[in-house]
Amino acid sequence: MLKKNRLFTPGPTPLLPAAQTAMAAANVHHRTADFKAVFQKTLAGLKTFIGTNNDVILLASSGTGAMESSVANLTKPGDKVLVLTAGKFGERWRDLTKAYGCQVEMLSEPYGQTFTMEAIGEKLGTNGNGIRAVYVQATESSTGVRHDVETIARRVRETHLQGGDALLVVDAITGLGTTRFDVDGWGIDVIIGGSQKALMVPPGLAYLAVSERAWKRMEEPHSPAYYFDLRKERKAAAKGESAYTPAIALIAGLCAALDFIAQAGGGDLAAGRDLLIHNAAVAAAMTRAAAQALGLSLYGTSPGDALTAVAVPHNLNSGAIVKEFRQHFDAVVADGQGDMKGQLFRIAHLGYFDYLDTIGIIGALEHIIAKLARPANFQFGMALQAAQEVYARCGDPKAAGV
Amino acid sequence: MLKKNRLFTPGPTPLLPAAQTAMAAANVHHRTADFKAVFQKTLAGLKTFIGTNNDVILLASSGTGAMESSVANLTKPGDKVLVLTAGKFGERWRDLTKAYGCQVEMLSEPYGQTFTMEAIGEKLGTNGNGIRAVYVQATESSTGVRHDVETIARRVRETHLQGGDALLVVDAITGLGTTRFDVDGWGIDVIIGGSQKALMVPPGLAYLAVSERAWKRMEEPHSPAYYFDLRKERKAAAKGESAYTPAIALIAGLCAALDFIAQAGGGDLAAGRDLLIHNAAVAAAMTRAAAQALGLSLYGTSPGDALTAVAVPHNLNSGAIVKEFRQHFDAVVADGQGDMKGQLFRIAHLGYFDYLDTIGIIGALEHIIAKLARPANFQFGMALQAAQEVYARCGDPKAAGV
Repeated sequence: MLKKNRLFTPGPTPLLPAAQTAMAAANVHHRTADFKAVFQKTLAGLKTFIGTNNDVILLASSGTGAMESSVANLTKPGDKVLVLTAGKFGERWRDLTKAYGCQVEMLSEPYGQTFTMEAIGEKLGTNGNGIRAVYVQATESSTGVRHDVETIARRVRETHLQGGDALLVVDAITGLGTTRFDVDGWGIDVIIGGSQKALMVPPGLAYLAVSERAWKRMEEPHSPAYYFDLRKERKAAAKGESAYTPAIALIAGLCAALDFIAQAGGGDLAAGRDLLIHNAAVAAAMTRAAAQALGLSLYGTSPGDALTAVAVPHNLNSGAIVKEFRQHFDAVVADGQGDMKGQLFRIAHLGYFDYLDTIGIIGALEHIIAKLARPANFQFGMALQAAQEVYARCGDPKAAGV
Repeated sequence: MLKKNRLFTPGPTPLLPAAQTAMAAANVHHRTADFKAVFQKTLAGLKTFIGTNNDVILLASSGTGAMESSVANLTKPGDKVLVLTAGKFGERWRDLTKAYGCQVEMLSEPYGQTFTMEAIGEKLGTNGNGIRAVYVQATESSTGVRHDVETIARRVRETHLQGGDALLVVDAITGLGTTRFDVDGWGIDVIIGGSQKALMVPPGLAYLAVSERAWKRMEEPHSPAYYFDLRKERKAAAKGESAYTPAIALIAGLCAALDFIAQAGGGDLAAGRDLLIHNAAVAAAMTRAAAQALGLSLYGTSPGDALTAVAVPHNLNSGAIVKEFRQHFDAVVADGQGDMKGQLFRIAHLGYFDYLDTIGIIGALEHIIAKLARPANFQFGMALQAAQEVYARCGDPKAAGV
């Protein structure tokens, strides 16, 4: 049959057509009232999407740029920081903080695991043990695991009562739009997102919401940050501009995507964001039921809904499954990353996926498992049936209010 | 869940992204060498796509315009013509030939049926009975039925041996790209196609391949044809132009679509067209197995692969099913047309559909049938399983050579 190229990767995710059109049409100069209006609307939209009253900064960079900005602007060499890692992106926090000369305290868990609050408590002690910033992922994209940011934030806040001053910096690049956050209520000082995830536009934009405590920290001496100077961007944003040339077309696309999300929420962007979270949850539940019906194991202890990580049987390399998806269905799914390459594959749910996409990729998975790992009790339809039953229970569009 | 708007209608069909991009980029004047090159390439491509050595004419009109041109240019008032009808588009031939004052001989069969060769033989006799043109559909889009053009053509040719001079005019608007034709070998004098069908571009272009016998007929006095003057278009085409302003963007899109089909055929447009025919056949077989697994009846005696027409149980109106597809999945399927409105629904297979589209719409159908007509033995997965088994047997992309 014909094959349409489709992304089922946890970023980039499938592009929203309205965003594609807006990008193609974005033939404007960035120092004009035309663009200022789009830029300001986008910043305001991001605030609602994140669910914060903190100022939002939009950077022309990948998510890693925003991660770097939250190290460079908030620490100086020798500062003690705590990095929580249980996957490839946790390791990125480690590498970044080390590159900036921080004294890095590590809490490492194996891939697929999350952190116990006891272990975090030991690291922080009652007064933070001099830790000036805690770096963590909301959802670790390499394993699909969701970390308990709410509890971590509470634990960090407790140290403040005893004189601690640790900031909490959360990489929510695959977390935003798939996970509920109360950013201000929980006290997340920096939360980071990227354009190519739940927001359905291409890579190239990162965004951060920064608390007053974090802005205040930046007044202290810190590592050099020029392109990623957040205070400079904040000043420019107050005038409706960016400090350096913005990624005009991507911002126009992002603005259109936020419009789409608002429209899905009946004109309410926060409601639309919640629907997006619900959407990922239904797609995840369908995919998980399907994988389990095929006798496959889900990977990780507390999976988030950004993606489903499926462990492959020991006699199989996940690379073969990824290749079959591409070769026979032109569907791009992700292999494991870092230590888990070859051992799991990942199907994304964040962003612009609907029922037909989800049931379609499950049907393809059935054919691939039939070919590569045919379990003893295999029959066609077994995974699809499980997914159909999940959708019948929780996918009703009316229930979801779409 | 989110819903992506998807066409499953037998025209317009889903747009090919490469054609969309080409249309958006087509900012050229039509009397330039730039456009001439595109126009000539498109005409040559259409010749291969149709599979003919006859000259091809491209009109800025819907398919009905090309149908009208094959009446206006080939008949004069009082000419005896034979119209074969078993559906809404057969009735269009009747209306057109009557509008042009022909003496219309009708062979009508009920919707969903096709013609017996005996009945056609009676109409034509041994020498054509003075019939100057025979008008028929290759596939009747309103019912999904495929008429046996090869045998009809043979029957018409036989009358020529006894002094008959009937031309055979075939509306293959949903037939081209879903059905095999040997246009020149069978002796089809006019075969008509449209852009919004297997060719994956929006409506607005119709094309015809015209035999030398038909060109010769046009030298006789015939009804007025100004915009649809085929000889004038033929003359212009010989210079790489169209007589009137062409639909530039649509032609650029069509050119890109023909490139895509050639690419699918490994650089061979005819092979790509055959793959497209195979593609529709696999999608049709999956859909039919699924519908039957749900206890639904297929409509029509000799269904083609352009679409599947599914009869609904007597206590159900097909409009309700069409509405559910749209409301809950944003999938646009077609109701019955003409006499069959409310009694069947139609899912298209012609053009840009792949495995994921097909299994997706079948999954949606399961949910709709579960809700509206839940048969006694219903269980989720029953339709999907049937479709999966069909795909496993005949949908292997390697077997199809894609």
